Amino acid sequence: MMETLSLNQAHGGSQGVYRHASTATGTDMVFSVYVPPHPEGARLPVLWYLSGLTCTHANVTDKGEYRRACAEQGVIFVAPDTSPRGDGVPDDEAYDFGQGAGFYVDASQAPWSQHFHMRTYLETELPALIAAHFPADMDRQGITGHSMGGHGALTIGLRNPERFRSVSAFSPIVAPSQVPWGQKALAGYLGPDTAEWRAYDAVALIEDGARLPELLVDTGAADPFLREQLRPDLLDAACASAGIALTQRIQPGYDHSYFFVSTFLADHVAWHAERLKR
Amino acid sequence: MMETLSLNQAHGGSQGVYRHASTATGTDMVFSVYVPPHPEGARLPVLWYLSGLTCTHANVTDKGEYRRACAEQGVIFVAPDTSPRGDGVPDDEAYDFGQGAGFYVDASQAPWSQHFHMRTYLETELPALIAAHFPADMDRQGITGHSMGGHGALTIGLRNPERFRSVSAFSPIVAPSQVPWGQKALAGYLGPDTAEWRAYDAVALIEDGARLPELLVDTGAADPFLREQLRPDLLDAACASAGIALTQRIQPGYDHSYFFVSTFLADHVAWHAERLKR
Repeated sequence: MMETLSLNQAHGGSQGVYRHASTATGTDMVFSVYVPPHPEGARLPVLWYLSGLTCTHANVTDKGEYRRACAEQGVIFVAPDTSPRGDGVPDDEAYDFGQGAGFYVDASQAPWSQHFHMRTYLETELPALIAAHFPADMDRQGITGHSMGGHGALTIGLRNPERFRSVSAFSPIVAPSQVPWGQKALAGYLGPDTAEWRAYDAVALIEDGARLPELLVDTGAADPFLREQLRPDLLDAACASAGIALTQRIQPGYDHSYFFVSTFLADHVAWHAERLKR
Repeated sequence: MMETLSLNQAHGGSQGVYRHASTATGTDMVFSVYVPPHPEGARLPVLWYLSGLTCTHANVTDKGEYRRACAEQGVIFVAPDTSPRGDGVPDDEAYDFGQGAGFYVDASQAPWSQHFHMRTYLETELPALIAAHFPADMDRQGITGHSMGGHGALTIGLRNPERFRSVSAFSPIVAPSQVPWGQKALAGYLGPDTAEWRAYDAVALIEDGARLPELLVDTGAADPFLREQLRPDLLDAACASAGIALTQRIQPGYDHSYFFVSTFLADHVAWHAERLKR
């Protein structure tokens, strides 16, 4: 069952926040959905937005500035949480591991393996819930995300090319196996065998044969994580080798914050809508 | 002196948050300013936005969705705090009195009279600071605000018609002397003599002869405070008697939240810009 925590009219549509008992994570999970104004009975394309470290659904819901664009384009916008949460859920005092830092994996290592199943949650459980409760056309899905959520969008997109017609990202961690944030998280959730990490690494997935026709990526040139954690150069190289049409824009002056994401999120909504409405 | 707390590029311009030692309030005060992209040396019109009960500068800065419109229109957007704050400042446990609820008055009653001088702060001190530190054309100012801040925008606008070329409001408390929120606050800050309240009541100011050529007001039809606290009917009547061209829109389905404000704030920015750029 799904409980409505809040529902507010915005830009002619409805911004809702919902809670449900997840079987994938064994916890309650909260997510937000914006449904734009639409004709009675219409089924609308869906854009998924995965958030970054420390975030919940609320960050982009409050600060993303996506509703006007979704209303103009007729696109449903779904923002899940970044991990299971709660008193019975393991955590870590660091901001980049544990609650708020699920890295979109199915964890195999104790104690994380009991609840940290964000891959199954996003690949199986939440899509079924969205299909059942919202006027969504699940044959027309796109996915994007920010930072850790950009990693999530790229990896879920690359593993499920039949599900997503469009994949983009903001400031993604493109090769977690090769950078500190990702090495810590993937070792912690999946163990030391780096072969197990490759399904959760966009560059490794491409090296291993995953293909999408095209990708759109925006990253700020003034992002303090650019060179150590995000490594857009590694995605350039992987896409060039694989023949994936990557549009990667390094935006002068922008940082890693929602001031950056909100500047370009309407562009991404329009880019996805063009592909989802073909 | 003014200290920069944060500065982020957004929609081609700069969103800053600043702190300064206010002589008007005798406390540090924080405010935000968005400066849109502009030619070197240009002086830009300024739109003031006053916030509502419980808010700081941060609510509209995070959730207002005004930056795209300000960038398109070339308008500076200034968002002050709603009261003095700090350990040495009197407070009240209620959400609608004391810190976060300054009601844009110069208080005359102890203990509020020591620090609660939001009228002087906004009519004298902060404009001088903005003029000194930002590329602002102070001959082209507009003002708007939400709820208690809508009250602030209307009253400051009506008292200073020579300063503001354009005045609008969202969900304003149009007649605080006649409604519970206002009666509590004005009695607390100004004492029991209701003659002292009239300079802080838009409807009373109009009755007493204050004039503006026109006003734009948006309020949600589903706003839970509509009939008891906001009373748009009283503004209708006052403007009709006074010959003020009031465009008052009661927006179906919208509530009192930033989901409402953010839906229409870009409209207000464009409305002000049209008048500020004539």
